[in-house]
Formats: sequence, C-alpha cells, structure tokens
Amino acid sequence: MLKPLGDRVVIETVETEEKTASGIVLPDTAKEKPQEGKVVAVGSGRVLDNGERVKVEVNVGDRIIFSKYAGTEVKYNGKEYLILRESDILAVVE
Amino acid sequence: MLKPLGDRVVIETVETEEKTASGIVLPDTAKEKPQEGKVVAVGSGRVLDNGERVKVEVNVGDRIIFSKYAGTEVKYNGKEYLILRESDILAVVE
Amino acid sequence: MLKPLGDRVVIETVETEEKTASGIVLPDTAKEKPQEGKVVAVGSGRVLDNGERVKVEVNVGDRIIFSKYAGTEVKYNGKEYLILRESDILAVVE
Amino acid sequence: MLKPLGDRVVIETVETEEKTASGIVLPDTAKEKPQEGKVVAVGSGRVLDNGERVKVEVNVGDRIIFSKYAGTEVKYNGKEYLILRESDILAVVE
Amino acid sequence: MLKPLGDRVVIETVETEEKTASGIVLPDTAKEKPQEGKVVAVGSGRVLDNGERVKVEVNVGDRIIFSKYAGTEVKYNGKEYLILRESDILAVVE
Amino acid sequence: MLKPLGDRVVIETVETEEKTASGIVLPDTAKEKPQEGKVVAVGSGRVLDNGERVKVEVNVGDRIIFSKYAGTEVKYNGKEYLILRESDILAVVE
Amino acid sequence: MLKPLGDRVVIETVETEEKTASGIVLPDTAKEKPQEGKVVAVGSGRVLDNGERVKVEVNVGDRIIFSKYAGTEVKYNGKEYLILRESDILAVVE
Repeated sequence: MLKPLGDRVVIETVETEEKTASGIVLPDTAKEKPQEGKVVAVGSGRVLDNGERVKVEVNVGDRIIFSKYAGTEVKYNGKEYLILRESDILAVVE
Repeated sequence: MLKPLGDRVVIETVETEEKTASGIVLPDTAKEKPQEGKVVAVGSGRVLDNGERVKVEVNVGDRIIFSKYAGTEVKYNGKEYLILRESDILAVVE
Repeated sequence: MLKPLGDRVVIETVETEEKTASGIVLPDTAKEKPQEGKVVAVGSGRVLDNGERVKVEVNVGDRIIFSKYAGTEVKYNGKEYLILRESDILAVVE
Repeated sequence: MLKPLGDRVVIETVETEEKTASGIVLPDTAKEKPQEGKVVAVGSGRVLDNGERVKVEVNVGDRIIFSKYAGTEVKYNGKEYLILRESDILAVVE
Repeated sequence: MLKPLGDRVVIETVETEEKTASGIVLPDTAKEKPQEGKVVAVGSGRVLDNGERVKVEVNVGDRIIFSKYAGTEVKYNGKEYLILRESDILAVVE
Repeated sequence: MLKPLGDRVVIETVETEEKTASGIVLPDTAKEKPQEGKVVAVGSGRVLDNGERVKVEVNVGDRIIFSKYAGTEVKYNGKEYLILRESDILAVVE
Repeated sequence: MLKPLGDRVVIETVETEEKTASGIVLPDTAKEKPQEGKVVAVGSGRVLDNGERVKVEVNVGDRIIFSKYAGTEVKYNGKEYLILRESDILAVVE
C-alpha cells in the first residue's frame, strides 16, 4: 500500500466518457487529463506553526475534483495512481 | 453536489447582457469573461497558524463580483461552475 | 450596494482637472489614470494569524490617494468604481 | 494635510546642490534622484501578526536618507511629496 | 556514516527493472531517474516558529517514493546516495 | 551622525591593498568592491512577530566581512559610507 | 578569527583526490567545486519568531557535505574559507 506524507492524498483517476460534439470517441492522446478521482489513501495532514497537525479534509473513498495537471503520477503494483497535495483538491463530489 | 475545500466557493457565473456603444449585441467570443456570479456552495474556510478556521465571508445565494480569469471551470451534471478561492472575490452585491 | 471583502475598499475615482504646461486640456487617452478617490464602502478587514481582524484604516467618505494602476475596475448600476486593497492606499487627504 | 497609512511616511525631498567635478552645475535631467528628505507626516505603523502595531522609527521633522527611486511621488496643494514605506528609509541624519 | 541535517533524509535509490513495451531492457542513459528509494538515515526534523522540532515522518528502512529529480546526489565510501528534504517524499510503500 | 533604521548598520569600507599576481597595483576601476568594513553605527534591530526587537549582532567598532555589492552607498559630510542590513554581514573579524 | 553571524558557519573546503575514469588526475579548472568541508567556526543560530535562538546543528571540527556552489568565498590571513548558511549543509560525515 502507498501511505502519502503530510497533506498528500493518493487517488485513482476516474476517466469520464469523452465524446466530441459530433459524437466521435476520441483516442487517448486527444483528451485532456482527467479532473476527477477517487481517494485511496490520505496523509496525516500538514503541521501548523503552533505544532498542531491539520487533518486532511477528504476521506478514503471520496470522489474529488482536482486541478488539471496537478500531482505526480506513480505506478504501484502495475496500477497508475496520482499523488496530490490537499491544496490541489478543489471539491468533493457528494 | 459539489462541496468545495478550504476557503473555496462554487459559483454559477451570471452573464450580463452586453452591447457595444452602437447597440450591437456581440457574439460570445468577443465578450470578456463574466465578472459576476451566484454562490452555490461554500467551503469550511482556511486554517490559521493558530489552528483556528476562518469562516468564508460569503454565503450560499450571495451575488458576488470576482477577478476576471480567476478560478477553475468545472462541469458537473452537465452544468458549468467556477470554483474560486475567497481571495478572488472582490465584493458582494447587496 | 457593493460590500467589499476582507481588507478591500470600494472607491469612486476623483478626476482632477488636468492641463498641459501650455494650458491645453488633454483628451482622455493622454491623461494618466487618476490617483485620487473617495471611499464609498469598506470591507471588514484582514484576519491576522492570531484570528484577530484588523479594521481598515480608512472610512466611508474619506478622500484617499492610491497607487496608480492599482485595483480592479467594476461597473455597478451604470457607474464605474474601483476596488482596492487597503495596502494600495497611500494616504488620506484631510 | 496628507495622513499616510500603515508604516508609510510623507516626506519633502531635499535637493542638495550638485556640481560635477569640474564645478559646472548640472541641469535637472542629468542629476540622480535625491536621496535626502524631511519627514512631514508619519503613519500609525504596521500591524504584527499578534495584533500589535509597531510605531514607525522616524518622527515629523526628521531628516532622513532613503533608497533611490523608492516611494511614490504625490502632488498636493501644488507641492510635490514622496510617500515612502518605513523599510525604504535607510537612516536618520542627526 | 552520513547524518542529514534538519528535515533531510539520506536514501539509497532503488532501481526497478525497466523494459520498453517491446520487452527490450534499456541501457542506463535511456531510463528516467529512479523514483523509489530506501531510507538509510533521517535528520532531526525542522524547527517550527514556536521552537518545537517536528519529527520526520519516515524511518530508517522505509521504502519511499519521491519526486523525480529531487535531492542532491552524494558519493560516500564509493557508494551513491541521495539527500532529500522530507517535502520531496511523496509516500511510503508499506 | 547617521542613525540607521531597524536591522541596518552604517559602515566605513576598508580597502585592502590589492595587487595582481605580477605585483602591479591596479587602478580603482579594475578592483572588485571591498568586502571588509568597520561598523560606525548600528540600528535598533528588527521587530519579530511577537513584538520583540532583536538586537543586531555587531557593535560599533567591529570589523566585518559582508556580501559583495550589498548595501547602499551614502555620502555624508563629504565621506562615503555603506548602509547594510544585518543579513548582508557574513562574519565579524576578531 | 572569523566569527560568523546568525545561522552561518565558516568552513575549510576539503579537496578530495579526483581522477577521471581513465585514471588521469585532472587540473584544477576541470574539477567540480568541492562538496566537502570542515567546520572552523559556528554562528549563534537564527532567531525564531518567538524570540528563541535555534542552535546550529553542526559543531567546530565536524566534516560536512554541502550544496555545490553554496556560500561565499572569503580570504582571511592568506587562507581561503567558505561561509555557508546552515541550510546549505546537507549532512555531517560521522
């Protein structure tokens, strides 16, 4: 398992079906990077200047929307993950 | 629903009717990006270095003016939203 | 009404009559942006790291001098305003 | 009167007679900007993160040396002033 | 032995067997820099503004994933190490 | 006298005799700026975020080594001085 | 003696014998700058925002590894030294 550090989270990206206006499914290279993901691991949070640790605002299983191009791609056990900082997460989809 | 993180807010942009001096309605590409929006969701606020969370100064339903080009466009349930940071909001229209 | 956020203020710019050395009144495009304004609305102030809010140092009705090119122009009810941060205000004219 | 905000001060610049090595007085455009001034107004000081305000280290009437090109020129009642931040002041001449 | 300062850690990089899609093992120069390492020494942690020292979140022996190109290569006793800051470590592999 | 503000110090630069390898004394323009000085005045120190003032670590009369090109040249009573920030001082020569 | 200020240290660089793969000793200009040094003097440490001084983590006599190109070269009593900030020191060799 991957245990992210600090205010980082590990996510699986969620590919949403993407068609052009004319209905043609685009091959991979023509699509923008995904903006949606599912949280699979959460770090212990960042440390404030008073020594307190701030819990990350998302939980394992949450579906999130994150900034395009944010994070670092990591391959683990043959599967691709993305490691983001909490600040790259825009919103949780409820 | 979209639940924004930290000091972020989700807004619907409000298009104001735009005419040139001569009264001609301009097509979309000639207009500047909108500067007005309606708040649809508000984050829990940012955390200060003393561990305190600062409530966002706007509420759901507020009409706001925000910096041009600020924020990230997000499509959710076929509708377009903009996710802004509180610092990108200039004023509330009362 | 416009209610500015944080340490922002809304001002009406004050145009000072501008003549060249030879006494010719210049058309609009040849003039520098105004440096003087009247405060019409004041935000609640910025929040310090100890959670305290610092009252903005100017009040509604104050005549102020501000950094050229600072702020964001906003049109509201057919009238032009400028939204500045307190730090863009140089002095109050008393 | 001009009342500067925060840690700003208003000064009158002091022109020191400037001659070239050969004793010729230079016309205005060939001289460097003045580095000396007299304080005519002092702001209330900057606010620290603990909410305390730090008194500006100079007083009205002080003769100061400041960084070349620092500050903003302001014309008030037909007279030119310079508004500086305290951090642009290098030393007081005693 | 190498004892890293502050929030730094010393790691041995772990080369993962790398093949192209066609199954050909690539020579060294064609591979990307490794992203995986084993922690061999840990610093005392960074000091917060309240004087507290924050323990580094990884331990000697941990397998970590770190940002590509992060850190400084150091040769010690004929062996290559990488000295990273804790903030360059993305996750621990458990 | 010059009284520097905050964490600034006023120094007299100390010219060290400079010869090229071949023993020729170089004219002024070919020499690097001096790196050594004698402290002639010390500011009251910078203010921390807790309101405390930190005494400058050097004293009047100290011989110091400072970063090349640091500081601002000031002419006072026909003599040249350099005003440095404490952070530009590398070491005291004892 | 040189007494460094704040979180600075004075070091003597340690030249490690450098040969190319073919065993040829390279002349000085072809070598990289040294990465190893011996601490000869240590400053009093940096001051935190709470007024506390943080002791530098290295001691006189320590052998250290530091970032290439970091620090300022200083000549004192005919000998070359390097003045580094503590943050440029990567590790102590024990």
